[in-house]
Amino acid sequence: MHNQLSERFGIEFPIFAFTHCRDVAAAVSKAGGLGVLGAIGHSPEELDVDLRWIRDQIGDRPVGVDVIVPAKFEGKGQSLSVADVNALIPAAHREFVNDLLARYDVPAGKSDRATAAGNAPAPFSPEQAFGLLEVAFAHKPALVANALGPPPPAMIEMAHDRGIPVAALAGAPNHAERHVAAGVDLIVAQGTEAGGHTGDIATMVLVPEIVDAVAPVPVLAAGGIGRGRQIAAAMALGAQGVWCGSVWLATEEAETHPTVKEKFLKATSADTLRSRSRTGKPARQLRSAWTDAWEAPAAPPTLPNPVQMLLAEPAMARIANAAHDPNSGAAQLANYFVGQIVGSLNQVKPVDRVVMEMVEEYIDTVQGMAGSLEDA
Amino acid sequence: MHNQLSERFGIEFPIFAFTHCRDVAAAVSKAGGLGVLGAIGHSPEELDVDLRWIRDQIGDRPVGVDVIVPAKFEGKGQSLSVADVNALIPAAHREFVNDLLARYDVPAGKSDRATAAGNAPAPFSPEQAFGLLEVAFAHKPALVANALGPPPPAMIEMAHDRGIPVAALAGAPNHAERHVAAGVDLIVAQGTEAGGHTGDIATMVLVPEIVDAVAPVPVLAAGGIGRGRQIAAAMALGAQGVWCGSVWLATEEAETHPTVKEKFLKATSADTLRSRSRTGKPARQLRSAWTDAWEAPAAPPTLPNPVQMLLAEPAMARIANAAHDPNSGAAQLANYFVGQIVGSLNQVKPVDRVVMEMVEEYIDTVQGMAGSLEDA
Repeated sequence: MHNQLSERFGIEFPIFAFTHCRDVAAAVSKAGGLGVLGAIGHSPEELDVDLRWIRDQIGDRPVGVDVIVPAKFEGKGQSLSVADVNALIPAAHREFVNDLLARYDVPAGKSDRATAAGNAPAPFSPEQAFGLLEVAFAHKPALVANALGPPPPAMIEMAHDRGIPVAALAGAPNHAERHVAAGVDLIVAQGTEAGGHTGDIATMVLVPEIVDAVAPVPVLAAGGIGRGRQIAAAMALGAQGVWCGSVWLATEEAETHPTVKEKFLKATSADTLRSRSRTGKPARQLRSAWTDAWEAPAAPPTLPNPVQMLLAEPAMARIANAAHDPNSGAAQLANYFVGQIVGSLNQVKPVDRVVMEMVEEYIDTVQGMAGSLEDA
Repeated sequence: MHNQLSERFGIEFPIFAFTHCRDVAAAVSKAGGLGVLGAIGHSPEELDVDLRWIRDQIGDRPVGVDVIVPAKFEGKGQSLSVADVNALIPAAHREFVNDLLARYDVPAGKSDRATAAGNAPAPFSPEQAFGLLEVAFAHKPALVANALGPPPPAMIEMAHDRGIPVAALAGAPNHAERHVAAGVDLIVAQGTEAGGHTGDIATMVLVPEIVDAVAPVPVLAAGGIGRGRQIAAAMALGAQGVWCGSVWLATEEAETHPTVKEKFLKATSADTLRSRSRTGKPARQLRSAWTDAWEAPAAPPTLPNPVQMLLAEPAMARIANAAHDPNSGAAQLANYFVGQIVGSLNQVKPVDRVVMEMVEEYIDTVQGMAGSLEDA
């Protein structure tokens, strides 16, 4: 599995692990892949603590950081605050969510972080993103990635000044071309079957299109990849490595909510959908009473990102707090971003075992294919 | 590329070509794959003519036949006629279609086959399907396939009595398990990126799930497969072969309407959608003014299959007839079933060249992967 890309990043296997959990990021980097910490729910101080902790665990092995950086960067002080965005939520939407939570007997939240942090920059604001990037750069990451849309010129310039490669996600060939024209060093071609924000084109079609469109820029395949056979398929499609997210959510190290982890273990590949109900943009997640309510004809139209997120996330926090309460139906509402490979997450395993099984199945698969070529 | 499956069917490459065009079916079988004629628009007499013609072309090479057989077979004389089904179309739906055609200046049809054949069995009726199957069996096909849903016991029994294997399409692992329990010999695992009737699960996720669910029954991968890299990916996922449809629609031999073929050559992988507007079931097709109209909020809900089909197909015939008329906007409405690989159909080629390019790219891909394993 060793190739140019793993050589370039100083890793054994070109398996890039997107995760919000520092334990998973460290464990993947220790197992020979490359952990990429998604710093989306972090404050700059929290990110600093987590990257310090990861460095202690992994020594001089590489780790990456993923931040959502908006394409337009107007300069400091131009961002909306949490309070500004909260003011954009219509009363009817608040009522719809409150009615839904009441119907499932979800108690009121003890602390409402979104309201408490009213003066903080809103999620997805440039001010928040660049604050996180500054912290990330101080820890000498092996790469920085922008999870949503094109990395802005300021981000690419800051990274390249420090000799750090920039990765960006693309759900269509023209997005990948735009990224490369802007200076991006590594494209994550993410198919519709992936968890989180995705487009409509499947990995099987998208990867070779993007590989051809941006050659010789290397491409990681994302979406539908959770085991060695799928890594071999990704390499056959022309990818130089893979970017996996969902597969780590059922590992021992993952901080996935226990109720959601239990749902993931039981779910089939047919139990996800792309829904705007959590962030305002189409994001693949587990189907639950929450997504059913937003898909129903009576639901209000979802709000734009990040307004929908500031409506949904406090509700999701209340749901998480009540998920174990036998007097609440919160567990029925609980969900999380996950791809269609959720159907093959049937057992909680440590991260290093997941990586080793991927590598072993990859080698078996390629040897089998090579053997059948010789027989012909 | 030679393996157990190609051995079993007496073909050089396990490339199964679904097509409604006898020229394509014959050309694929001559090129070393296996043509499968989709007998969906055929009368029994037309199917007999086409299978005779194919046999003249291919000699003793194998060819398959695909028929849509409904799961419930009540016995002869129980089927609805075309006139019965036409009577189920509400006036408001007829008006919506007539308004749409008028808006695009599509002239009235010269002959309306659906109305003319009022006493004939309706499409998707058991009577129609078994009439076609009897003709097919007389021509000793290498396989019979049911394109939609589980093959009924009578179909499997008839085929097995004659020593003919039965294939069936599955868009979810439980469908594949149900098919195998009913006696199906070959599963086509068809991902959401495929053209025509599809489910929601992508090929990358679906194929290994179905391979594991039905082993040792062989699996063909379908959806997103149009070139050698994608065949290699399918084999990596555990398939023993591939089932392709869209890739033949832009070949020299294909009878694809010239306007639609031109649209296919220009389309990107983002230009398809799953729509119920042609058959009443979700079927992936090219986005056009027709699908836009049915997706619009003002559109009536689509009707069940086959009622929607008897509403849509006469309209599509009028559109096809007028597509070259400079005084009509019919070309904007024209579309056809096609998968997301439409983005890589950029040139009209003969079928044998498509097959040869697939095989060459497959071999290059597998050799490259095998080489990288040795380097490690």
